[in-house]
Amino acid sequence: MRNRTLLEELKQYSGEDYYPFHMPGHKRNLFDFPNPFSVDITEIEGFDNLHCPEGILKDCMEYASQVYQSGETRFLVNGSTCGILSAVCGLTGKKGRILMSRNCHRSTYNGVFLNELKSEYIYPQIIPEFGIQGGILPEDVEKSLKKYPDIQAVLIVSPTYEGVVSNISEIARIVHRAGVPLIVDEAHGAHFPFAYQGGFPVSALQLGADVVIQSLHKTLPSFTQTALLHIRRGFRDTENIEKYLSIFQTSSPSYLFLSSIDRCIRMMVSDRGEHLKRLSESIEEVKRLSKTFSHLRILPEELKGLYGIYDIDPSKLVISLRGTGLSGKWLSDKLRCDYHLEMEMSGLDYVLAMTSPFDREEGFQRLRAALSDVDREMETRVFRRQPDDRFSDDLQDFQSEAAMSIYEAWNAETEQVSLRESEGKISREFVYIYPPGIPVIAPGEKITGRAIELIETYKEKKLAVQGTSDRTAEKILIVKI
Amino acid sequence: MRNRTLLEELKQYSGEDYYPFHMPGHKRNLFDFPNPFSVDITEIEGFDNLHCPEGILKDCMEYASQVYQSGETRFLVNGSTCGILSAVCGLTGKKGRILMSRNCHRSTYNGVFLNELKSEYIYPQIIPEFGIQGGILPEDVEKSLKKYPDIQAVLIVSPTYEGVVSNISEIARIVHRAGVPLIVDEAHGAHFPFAYQGGFPVSALQLGADVVIQSLHKTLPSFTQTALLHIRRGFRDTENIEKYLSIFQTSSPSYLFLSSIDRCIRMMVSDRGEHLKRLSESIEEVKRLSKTFSHLRILPEELKGLYGIYDIDPSKLVISLRGTGLSGKWLSDKLRCDYHLEMEMSGLDYVLAMTSPFDREEGFQRLRAALSDVDREMETRVFRRQPDDRFSDDLQDFQSEAAMSIYEAWNAETEQVSLRESEGKISREFVYIYPPGIPVIAPGEKITGRAIELIETYKEKKLAVQGTSDRTAEKILIVKI
Repeated sequence: MRNRTLLEELKQYSGEDYYPFHMPGHKRNLFDFPNPFSVDITEIEGFDNLHCPEGILKDCMEYASQVYQSGETRFLVNGSTCGILSAVCGLTGKKGRILMSRNCHRSTYNGVFLNELKSEYIYPQIIPEFGIQGGILPEDVEKSLKKYPDIQAVLIVSPTYEGVVSNISEIARIVHRAGVPLIVDEAHGAHFPFAYQGGFPVSALQLGADVVIQSLHKTLPSFTQTALLHIRRGFRDTENIEKYLSIFQTSSPSYLFLSSIDRCIRMMVSDRGEHLKRLSESIEEVKRLSKTFSHLRILPEELKGLYGIYDIDPSKLVISLRGTGLSGKWLSDKLRCDYHLEMEMSGLDYVLAMTSPFDREEGFQRLRAALSDVDREMETRVFRRQPDDRFSDDLQDFQSEAAMSIYEAWNAETEQVSLRESEGKISREFVYIYPPGIPVIAPGEKITGRAIELIETYKEKKLAVQGTSDRTAEKILIVKI
Repeated sequence: MRNRTLLEELKQYSGEDYYPFHMPGHKRNLFDFPNPFSVDITEIEGFDNLHCPEGILKDCMEYASQVYQSGETRFLVNGSTCGILSAVCGLTGKKGRILMSRNCHRSTYNGVFLNELKSEYIYPQIIPEFGIQGGILPEDVEKSLKKYPDIQAVLIVSPTYEGVVSNISEIARIVHRAGVPLIVDEAHGAHFPFAYQGGFPVSALQLGADVVIQSLHKTLPSFTQTALLHIRRGFRDTENIEKYLSIFQTSSPSYLFLSSIDRCIRMMVSDRGEHLKRLSESIEEVKRLSKTFSHLRILPEELKGLYGIYDIDPSKLVISLRGTGLSGKWLSDKLRCDYHLEMEMSGLDYVLAMTSPFDREEGFQRLRAALSDVDREMETRVFRRQPDDRFSDDLQDFQSEAAMSIYEAWNAETEQVSLRESEGKISREFVYIYPPGIPVIAPGEKITGRAIELIETYKEKKLAVQGTSDRTAEKILIVKI
């Protein structure tokens, strides 16, 4: 048993010199905030009820709605998770059908489960030079909408974790032509609306999406677990979304969170894009430097227009090691141990550094110095150059076949079998290959020989296969018939 | 539009001298806590993932489990709400049947909706001298379990908002004899396990309940929105509860909340019941004083054994004005305006002062002085003595008849009709009479003449009728057939 409390561990960590190239977007800056116990109140006289706002929270949300030019904006205290769940459950009927990008967050799949939906998928493009997800092609959305006229809602993730933005205005036109609403999971794009001086993608809310969910904490200075749900002006079908928000959020919402959301929005408004402009410049400097590197590459903006990529959020630095024989984990560990720089994520052959408007110049200096060092060190290291790994391309024409809904699969009796012998069975689990982090198999889908072959190849090459309760992915849970 | 931010309003309020006889239980004491931005982190190296704990969060929850002598204890960051939802959805089958006390929190009804359950109700007893809810009779539980052998789970609220504890060990025996699990909503009883020196009720977890949900913030020093879900040692059916917890809680849980939970539990352990002992003494002093009052009465412990009351949590001070002709709102406004004492709640003819182990002597002094003053003032005031109001007794033999599930009612087409003409229709709304805050009508229930009569009588007497979207309760939403 540990002797120290979690708070003590956190205090010690915050006293060390690790620099966060990860969430949350406040980057542990010591913004002015009172002792949290002093302002953690409940619904007393003069304050308000989030589930039925009539006073100060109503005012705050109306102000936010003006800022975002939305029809309505709701403060969320249970993360983007509750916004996604509410949008999915609120805009589809029980046992209906949803069209969603295959790279959705777990909460979307959970919404599909809760409403017992049939789910059709749009596979994002793959960027072959980097092995990461590209964008969603509007024509793929159109094809699916024609194939399944009973689709009730469309949900797209944009930007992706790595910052890739799809052509939302074109997708919105297509989706609206089919008479259904477009939900955009913009969890990683909460900073877009505040780029008054340009340099960042436009928010889906300005491009015709009906419901847009943003995590405030991921890229902006607000506490972790805070988020916003925006509804487009003129979008009428809001009653059900509100109903589900009141179900999926606590009846005792935190005033620490609510005040953090309000504070964050007002701070970004009064900043007039200054911090984002400075961030652009810092990112540019890293990218200019990276052009001198021999081994490390940063995902370039020049990919726009290819692989479904409509725009790229520069605040996500995808640092690729592809072709060097070294792994993302190697780089990420090296940056942590030797330079005390903590990355957001490491993929097979890349790391993701997440920046925010409140990164400090000190952090960028340390990152530039570290990357230069590492790139030089790679020159002298013995490492095996290997041909570009193109397995992930196989995912592009990959198609799954659903035998039952996720709801049915999760409620069915189950047994564990060897993956190699599972062809033709119905999976009860997700199987992801990482990167690009898209499920090859989702619950309720028939396991094909092609999928097994792909997963086995990945395992042979020691690539990451995730999602199965058996961590070696030798076995898989299937639906017992 | 307001000029000041929500945080500024909160800071100003905390600088004033209003004393909180309400939640949260930390009572705005300035406990040592670092700048919250400095410790608000995400799942980085050395820390942990709440949805799949393997490191420090696992250790913290195991420590908590030892403290509570549970089989498993889970930290909740979306309030008791997500614990109740998960227990209800996790322990019943879709379209199954649940037996629940009629005075359940909204989240229980939401769980009933999500799992499309049929709900059978046990009505709490009513304490006639105070017009508030008593306890749940074990024999009522037994009767319902015999009548509906397909009941899959039983959920009881104990203690009630006003501190009334039911006979959980007897209820647990009955429920287990029927082979189903017992869930106890102990949102208001998180302090019970820490009364090492006695004086408080025993937690349902020690009395045989299978799943117990406690709001930490309501009575203990933890941030609002933090809670615990305990599972009894030896209870096996946990997988589904875990599945729903991972659905109903954000995938970005707040480390502020998690560290606040851990800190709170360790603080209460090392306190060895000292603060609760002191609280008992302060409460005793208020009660002793109240014996000298001519008009104000405090709910006495002597009610134990009557009206289904097995035990009473002394930390809830129910201050009754019954028979004085003055309302709870009058007293609550008076205490706020003249004495800067903020109450938790005002009912028709009582107010509820919520105390916690971290109330300060200053608060009790001010409360005693204020109540003495007010009681004296009532002597000289012109006020109409009226016979005891016994309307709420009518609820005791009140029975509702469900025509459809809450799920069906909420999904049905609806229209608004005059309440007086709604007999025989199926309601789509709750109608509460307050106090005692128990629904007379729930969604899906047939509206009876008796219910209309009761509601109209309440309205005539200017008593509070709540729940209808029409605030005057002249109209009601019904299911359009």
